[in-house]
Amino acid sequence: MNFDFSTYMESFIDRKTYEEFFSKKESVLEKLKSYDMTGWIENSISKEEVNKIKEVSAKVREHADVFLVLGIGGSYLGSKAVIEAFSPYFKKMKKTEVIFGGINMSSEYLKQLLDYIEDKDVVVNVISKSGTTMEISVAFDLVYKKLSERFSEEEIKERIIVTTDKEEGKLRKLADLKGYTSFEIPRNIGGRFSVSTPAGLLPISVAGINIDTFLEGYNNALLKYIDKAFVYACIRNTLYKENRCVENFVSYEPKLSYFNEWLKQLFGESEGKDNKGILPTSTIYTRDLHSLGQYMQSGKEILFETVIRLEESEIINYQNSDINKMNFIISESVATAHREGHTPSNIITLSHFDSKTMGELIYFFLLSAAFSGILLEVNPFDQPGVEAYKSEVKKNLG
Amino acid sequence: MNFDFSTYMESFIDRKTYEEFFSKKESVLEKLKSYDMTGWIENSISKEEVNKIKEVSAKVREHADVFLVLGIGGSYLGSKAVIEAFSPYFKKMKKTEVIFGGINMSSEYLKQLLDYIEDKDVVVNVISKSGTTMEISVAFDLVYKKLSERFSEEEIKERIIVTTDKEEGKLRKLADLKGYTSFEIPRNIGGRFSVSTPAGLLPISVAGINIDTFLEGYNNALLKYIDKAFVYACIRNTLYKENRCVENFVSYEPKLSYFNEWLKQLFGESEGKDNKGILPTSTIYTRDLHSLGQYMQSGKEILFETVIRLEESEIINYQNSDINKMNFIISESVATAHREGHTPSNIITLSHFDSKTMGELIYFFLLSAAFSGILLEVNPFDQPGVEAYKSEVKKNLG
Repeated sequence: MNFDFSTYMESFIDRKTYEEFFSKKESVLEKLKSYDMTGWIENSISKEEVNKIKEVSAKVREHADVFLVLGIGGSYLGSKAVIEAFSPYFKKMKKTEVIFGGINMSSEYLKQLLDYIEDKDVVVNVISKSGTTMEISVAFDLVYKKLSERFSEEEIKERIIVTTDKEEGKLRKLADLKGYTSFEIPRNIGGRFSVSTPAGLLPISVAGINIDTFLEGYNNALLKYIDKAFVYACIRNTLYKENRCVENFVSYEPKLSYFNEWLKQLFGESEGKDNKGILPTSTIYTRDLHSLGQYMQSGKEILFETVIRLEESEIINYQNSDINKMNFIISESVATAHREGHTPSNIITLSHFDSKTMGELIYFFLLSAAFSGILLEVNPFDQPGVEAYKSEVKKNLG
Repeated sequence: MNFDFSTYMESFIDRKTYEEFFSKKESVLEKLKSYDMTGWIENSISKEEVNKIKEVSAKVREHADVFLVLGIGGSYLGSKAVIEAFSPYFKKMKKTEVIFGGINMSSEYLKQLLDYIEDKDVVVNVISKSGTTMEISVAFDLVYKKLSERFSEEEIKERIIVTTDKEEGKLRKLADLKGYTSFEIPRNIGGRFSVSTPAGLLPISVAGINIDTFLEGYNNALLKYIDKAFVYACIRNTLYKENRCVENFVSYEPKLSYFNEWLKQLFGESEGKDNKGILPTSTIYTRDLHSLGQYMQSGKEILFETVIRLEESEIINYQNSDINKMNFIISESVATAHREGHTPSNIITLSHFDSKTMGELIYFFLLSAAFSGILLEVNPFDQPGVEAYKSEVKKNLG
């Protein structure tokens, strides 16, 4: 990974503010160590657990038409981001298709989901750390009822995989009672940091993506990118102090749209508290240059951009160049134009893109979000605001 | 359509500022009339043109596997938004599938697109008002080359439909020269206002959606919603004056995600200029409550939300209620919680959702965007900032 944090950014950064943040490195590292929820930093998963995931995944892929993941938030966005990044745009995988449910309360979506799995060889992975997530409980109840119409309880047992806490919660109790295959989400890893746990890895593996190389990239990233992650965190906080309160995550490859969504949860939930935080948004360029480009160029000066570029891709010759080279030149031209229009850009370039570099990229951002939150003087690992709407919903739904 | 602009909003609106905006109604209407680019307000398309669209569309649907739309920005988001809103989540339409190209410069996307159409019965609709949009020129060249491998020039003629300016531009010349079927985008309608022209209506019609009822809704909306659109515009500008510089468009139905994207272009491009404007973002709830809900609840107080709800949907009984009712109660609970967390919400409820109400909804927002831009004292119909990156790209691509 190549980080260009200066070409399109330099003139926007107040040096003094930046140096002040940068001087806090030691205390930020100390602070990070003081938190409990840091199981994602090292050894987030054991060799045995990885092997069990691969075994279960291989078995599922042998027969299932559909692998239905019931998960939301941190139990959805990580695996969805990785799977989309390595899936074709047009042709669907023949076997095994990974689909997601429990991601909304739309009766239309649920109805169509239930119809879709009706005659398919389906395996369900229900994921909830607490075991009590409303959307997941509702979807699981409905899916279970649907399966009951076709299968005996003994047959259903072979079609349900539970990923939840080791000991506690409704789902753990159910898994133990019924003898479902189950995986554990460690207590010291929060949802948005859990892609390297079974919550992310099982769906990723069933989608046919190599989780060994993914974890290799993930596990080697700490030493490799700790300095860059801290620089990035300092830049973000400096810009925020200068009233840039929105970060637009940009990719020039549509297959990274869900990676952007994952980034939005990671940063929005880690920093958006105590009436502060950078609001994360996302765009796919060049598509969205034709819609939001006008705002990025000359709207209110509240934005900065962080662009993820992939250097290697298909070669399609076009005139005296090739499309991929053109896309690359366009990305530089846009950053230049946006800088002139007073929107600064960070650029991260991946010379090569595969499951290993995906693991690195994810780790880089996890570390950046933790550093950023600490520099912003919030707890990057809690999400107290999420309880507010949940208790209002509970009150009104009875 | 039911508009609730007060329940979740009242305490945030400075009455004096609001009244000041509201008192400008007459002058705003005058100002609107003074612009040229207002062809979308009344009679955006003739009966003859609509009939021609329906004829061409029926012919396409008789044989084509794939209807490939090459369009970007205003020539993409409108039809995409409407088509997605009426497409199933899981089962693909058997015939005729509408897909989009020219929406990026990703060589991987283009490669897969070219492979996908390789053995299919394909009809191409190339849409560009100016006739010179880079992404469209590139995609059209590549697709044309691909078709040439299988078809004679005479056969290709039956597979290309051009939508562009009446007289000017490269595409118009090409269409006239080769005798391609062609449609016209009126000069006095800008891209983001063009969904009721052939740029939007032909793809929508090919997707099997009734454009007569769509236009019925669209054409009757002026009288029906002009007052509400102005109130909404005044609310937006009042909140903006109070430093709420981000509007989050929310839907509880995933099928409206591209409608949100369309809204982002409409408002972002109409208002994001002269270093001002409300930045539009979008979320699908409840999904994104599990990612960005934390920020909406207790992040920096820069946001307000505009929620689109659909009242009627599939009935799935669940415990003592049904899922759709639950989704509705959740939306009220969330608005209440967000209000308590200092994020105000506008709520628009559609009791019934079909192509006619979709036409109304689109018109309501077009009018709102025009009013809003005028109240903000910008020209809502230009997009000067878009030229900045285009000329930088041109310079660097040579």
